[in-house]
Amino acid sequence: MAPSAEPARRQEIWLDCDPGHDDAVALILAGHNPALHLLGVSTVAGNQTVEKVTDNALRVLAAAGLAHVPVVAGAAKPLLRPVPLLCAEIHGESGLDGPLGGPVLPAASHGALPGKAPVCMFEAIAAAHARLVAGGAADARVHLVATAALTNVALLLALYPEVVDMVEVTIMGGCLGVGNTGPVMEFNIQTDPEAARIVFESGVRLAMVPLEVTHTALVTTSVLQRVRTHQPSPFLGLMTDLLMFFSDTYATVFKMKDPPLHDPCAVAWVIAPELFKTEFLRVDVETVSTLSPGQTVCDIWGQSRLPKNCTVCMEMDVARFWDLVIDAIHAADGVSPLNQQEQRQQEQQQQQH
Amino acid sequence: MAPSAEPARRQEIWLDCDPGHDDAVALILAGHNPALHLLGVSTVAGNQTVEKVTDNALRVLAAAGLAHVPVVAGAAKPLLRPVPLLCAEIHGESGLDGPLGGPVLPAASHGALPGKAPVCMFEAIAAAHARLVAGGAADARVHLVATAALTNVALLLALYPEVVDMVEVTIMGGCLGVGNTGPVMEFNIQTDPEAARIVFESGVRLAMVPLEVTHTALVTTSVLQRVRTHQPSPFLGLMTDLLMFFSDTYATVFKMKDPPLHDPCAVAWVIAPELFKTEFLRVDVETVSTLSPGQTVCDIWGQSRLPKNCTVCMEMDVARFWDLVIDAIHAADGVSPLNQQEQRQQEQQQQQH
Amino acid sequence: MAPSAEPARRQEIWLDCDPGHDDAVALILAGHNPALHLLGVSTVAGNQTVEKVTDNALRVLAAAGLAHVPVVAGAAKPLLRPVPLLCAEIHGESGLDGPLGGPVLPAASHGALPGKAPVCMFEAIAAAHARLVAGGAADARVHLVATAALTNVALLLALYPEVVDMVEVTIMGGCLGVGNTGPVMEFNIQTDPEAARIVFESGVRLAMVPLEVTHTALVTTSVLQRVRTHQPSPFLGLMTDLLMFFSDTYATVFKMKDPPLHDPCAVAWVIAPELFKTEFLRVDVETVSTLSPGQTVCDIWGQSRLPKNCTVCMEMDVARFWDLVIDAIHAADGVSPLNQQEQRQQEQQQQQH
Amino acid sequence: MAPSAEPARRQEIWLDCDPGHDDAVALILAGHNPALHLLGVSTVAGNQTVEKVTDNALRVLAAAGLAHVPVVAGAAKPLLRPVPLLCAEIHGESGLDGPLGGPVLPAASHGALPGKAPVCMFEAIAAAHARLVAGGAADARVHLVATAALTNVALLLALYPEVVDMVEVTIMGGCLGVGNTGPVMEFNIQTDPEAARIVFESGVRLAMVPLEVTHTALVTTSVLQRVRTHQPSPFLGLMTDLLMFFSDTYATVFKMKDPPLHDPCAVAWVIAPELFKTEFLRVDVETVSTLSPGQTVCDIWGQSRLPKNCTVCMEMDVARFWDLVIDAIHAADGVSPLNQQEQRQQEQQQQQH
Repeated sequence: MAPSAEPARRQEIWLDCDPGHDDAVALILAGHNPALHLLGVSTVAGNQTVEKVTDNALRVLAAAGLAHVPVVAGAAKPLLRPVPLLCAEIHGESGLDGPLGGPVLPAASHGALPGKAPVCMFEAIAAAHARLVAGGAADARVHLVATAALTNVALLLALYPEVVDMVEVTIMGGCLGVGNTGPVMEFNIQTDPEAARIVFESGVRLAMVPLEVTHTALVTTSVLQRVRTHQPSPFLGLMTDLLMFFSDTYATVFKMKDPPLHDPCAVAWVIAPELFKTEFLRVDVETVSTLSPGQTVCDIWGQSRLPKNCTVCMEMDVARFWDLVIDAIHAADGVSPLNQQEQRQQEQQQQQH
Repeated sequence: MAPSAEPARRQEIWLDCDPGHDDAVALILAGHNPALHLLGVSTVAGNQTVEKVTDNALRVLAAAGLAHVPVVAGAAKPLLRPVPLLCAEIHGESGLDGPLGGPVLPAASHGALPGKAPVCMFEAIAAAHARLVAGGAADARVHLVATAALTNVALLLALYPEVVDMVEVTIMGGCLGVGNTGPVMEFNIQTDPEAARIVFESGVRLAMVPLEVTHTALVTTSVLQRVRTHQPSPFLGLMTDLLMFFSDTYATVFKMKDPPLHDPCAVAWVIAPELFKTEFLRVDVETVSTLSPGQTVCDIWGQSRLPKNCTVCMEMDVARFWDLVIDAIHAADGVSPLNQQEQRQQEQQQQQH
Repeated sequence: MAPSAEPARRQEIWLDCDPGHDDAVALILAGHNPALHLLGVSTVAGNQTVEKVTDNALRVLAAAGLAHVPVVAGAAKPLLRPVPLLCAEIHGESGLDGPLGGPVLPAASHGALPGKAPVCMFEAIAAAHARLVAGGAADARVHLVATAALTNVALLLALYPEVVDMVEVTIMGGCLGVGNTGPVMEFNIQTDPEAARIVFESGVRLAMVPLEVTHTALVTTSVLQRVRTHQPSPFLGLMTDLLMFFSDTYATVFKMKDPPLHDPCAVAWVIAPELFKTEFLRVDVETVSTLSPGQTVCDIWGQSRLPKNCTVCMEMDVARFWDLVIDAIHAADGVSPLNQQEQRQQEQQQQQH
Repeated sequence: MAPSAEPARRQEIWLDCDPGHDDAVALILAGHNPALHLLGVSTVAGNQTVEKVTDNALRVLAAAGLAHVPVVAGAAKPLLRPVPLLCAEIHGESGLDGPLGGPVLPAASHGALPGKAPVCMFEAIAAAHARLVAGGAADARVHLVATAALTNVALLLALYPEVVDMVEVTIMGGCLGVGNTGPVMEFNIQTDPEAARIVFESGVRLAMVPLEVTHTALVTTSVLQRVRTHQPSPFLGLMTDLLMFFSDTYATVFKMKDPPLHDPCAVAWVIAPELFKTEFLRVDVETVSTLSPGQTVCDIWGQSRLPKNCTVCMEMDVARFWDLVIDAIHAADGVSPLNQQEQRQQEQQQQQH
């Protein structure tokens, strides 16, 4: 009998985010995809203040049965720019609003870790990296996925330059052409251009999933139906509410019929790079211009003489992306304490009858 | 008898260019389209040095039976940048090379006007404008079409601010997304970003035909066939040679199967704006960044609070564009002295027999 | 009897200015110093709008017996910056206010030349240069002295690059250290940094008299007394009024006890370079920074590898400077029509008695 | 008996430096002035690589009887700029060369602390601040003196924003006018302009001792004599060697007869602010310009509307400064193990005789 293939090792992943509706789905995908092991989560000011997005990360993890994943709060403002941009027009005042305004997920029962995000990130990453090295892994790099401003990641790299050899960084961010929060700028990079520059200049192994890709990950009606099709549950109901709110604000602000679910695309790249067409390019981050701060200038003609520094995702297999996302949401649904609570109530009611 | 429709007045047009293969076709279109009256031509360093492009303009006009159109040489370098970029890799050492290298068109029998381009431009434009006003024209604006760096146009506007109310400026240049001679920069604007900024900030009525449009004006095999289909002639032979050279260099430099014939698109906009889909936008020219000097930052989301200043062409009816271009080439063929020469030789040979 | 030395040829000079109190004295010095021949005067927006400073130039020349000197109006705004800075807090609403507010000099009886300043400048300079060449002059350069924003001079150099070999440009402007209208910026250069950059990069023979020198040309009480000491006259009374107004505004704005009479210093450099200590340096004009637009970055340590481009005046013999200035004012007093008018009235009164 | 005045509390101080000859004296002044308690020392790439300057700090402290002061190595490169500038032409290849080239101080017997400088800085500062608060200090701020590039200080502020209320930062750096390593730039700020910007924008209580002050702290012959006058000793001999080397390189590079001892001036400000004339100003750090990166633009006319953020030292009582410095050097001499070693040898020799 042929020996069965040994199961592939799960990728170690740390997620740096600012939930945010699409970050919420990225958290669920990172926590429930079987190919990943989510080491921890850090937050940074962006879609909303760092206090709000940290609270949102805790709520999402708790609701998705991932309360065991540690969360640490990161930077409250960009490195050099005086204040973060924030993005209430898309994510609401709480950063994770539902259709009635305000948060839809219940508060988490515990808070974030004490300590500073870059320090906690380094300790978790270095430990995981050491385990991989000790285990003889062919590639001992830990995945650091950033779906927000790169302030924490830049501080990590500046404070611990030795981390360059321990991680592969994947960011949702940037664009080759038209931007979103500026003519040619994507929100995450625009929020802290100098931090992005530090990351892109650091020499770290780097991949970027730009707007050109994420704008194909549209939450269409059929996607929403696939989310809901599963047996109805409180968790899926709340997920649907979040996606509907996101859809409404995108329609208002950008006149887009269906909203693009940016952040899970970067997690999908870690899970299944074969879903993506990529090019390895020189990418520079604009920090000087007042017209285009945070533009990711992608040298697609190879005209600069500078060394290439970033794998840029150009296209994504959208159908298979949604398979990954919806599987993760349904896996979360299976363990969500929100459902268990209801289930217990139903069971109690049945027993009482 | 039904009254015949009164013929529409021809548009007065001045062409500022740097021939260049696509400028050559723009000259022919401007000189032979029945809806236009070509007042004059100015040149500027760009595709090649100003001496070479001036010589090329004279050769093209002579070959196309347009030797009566005055030519004046303009700026030899950008306003602030020390030297022009030049573009020999596309247009050859002469700026208008043919398949064997070197110029294919015969030298013109007369030279450019003495005098400075901005001064001559103003005098011709002001006179034409005055004639239009005197004639009671509904719109007395003269068309100033620039298919090169905007150095001459900027000097015209700086020296004669009153010309703002006399002209409508149409430029071939800029891009919304990916550029050509830089990651996000189009050649004409990149050559003299500060001149472009002067033009875009001047308040003049302005339209721009960016790379997104001109990259649809591809000289395909079928386009070449339509050029040649006409009865063979020396003039059409040379035109074909020029287009073949252009096709080869584009294939080499940009890996494009068919080369985009940028410049005539701007002339087509003057002839037939109905061929274009446009948006009226705020466009700013980057002059500060070293990553993207000359980028035309187009505020497509309307996020800046600045007044809109440019009609940006977004799409073009390519089939009807080629109709205009090929009609003009064939009209030139009908009056080309190159052909008449041959014709005379043929007639002489027939008489001798 | 020993032959007397042949009188030295007078220097040909064109003055580009924005009167302005100190420009007024520069006009008088340029018009009445025996070593100079004032070819003409151009104006540019700066201390006040170009309309006002043109009117002021005409008034000053008329009052000083220089009505024969042609005046032409130049640029109404900087090349790229949308509006000039203006400087009413120093020069008043008219640009040449007196103690009671409003202009003190009578209106001139004739206006400025028609035409554009750079064109008129070129014609006058080229003609004078040709005369000097024809006369066998050892140095056939015409002096172009600019005591205002360099917009006109930049347009002259951009439009007529051949003028580089015909002129020596001397500017009042810039600073090595502390500025006046900005922390490190001098007003004239700050008003049109891009124009200044064109001039400094043009390759023209260039000298600059910076704030470090002009801030030693203080209109002290003893200077004022020397102006007035001369037999009292209407002209000297008005000159005193102008200097008193200037003294008051400087005291208010800059807390300086005595005001610095910047502009005549640049004319003095042309008359008597031996009064100055200089260094030949690389000077670059800042056009990119929003903190220091128009800073003249003077490479005093020679650390850049760029070619030197400017003779920078470092110190001036102030006593001999004032001799030149006061002699010129008194020469103007001798021919001022304002005095002649009064003299006629006095003579008439005497005849009537 | 009259009650003796209670001795004033010693100021808690952390020194961030890049020794460097003048840093060496700053270390001695910070460690041996009776008004200060030196908590620790961090290092950063600048005068030489971070490895070399860390080694130098350890050598200086050991030689000066301060081996108990902890040292931690900081950033090896600026935040965004790819490499530090370094300054071997002034400080030699070791960063602390003597007249024969190479280091003159013996190697220290122990190394730097493990750990990251910003983390160690925060822990020491927060503990000292807590002690001061607990002790009821009127002003519980710890002094953080930086005599090098501000990379460590910026990372401290970015990672621990709460430190803003615990410290007063004093920097040797910047200039109002002429610079040293650039036309208008001082070396420390120029080395990491973005770090400096973070510090100046942080809201921390901030003082700066610019070149205008430090260029008055000249190591004249009489200063050198006062150093040596004290009873000859190995320690004073080495100190003299270091100052002579420094004097030679300054003479070579900057043509200065006596070298300016920059860094101890910043420590002197903490000890005796009454020695300084100051102005409280708005200071902005240039990060955009390529002509003047790291210029400290000091708004001395108050023309910006931005809040003031820095106490700028304008003048120093040089005689009393040297009293402080020489007292500290002599105090170090009294406890230097280098001398004790020699003393022991002399005693042994005497016993043997």
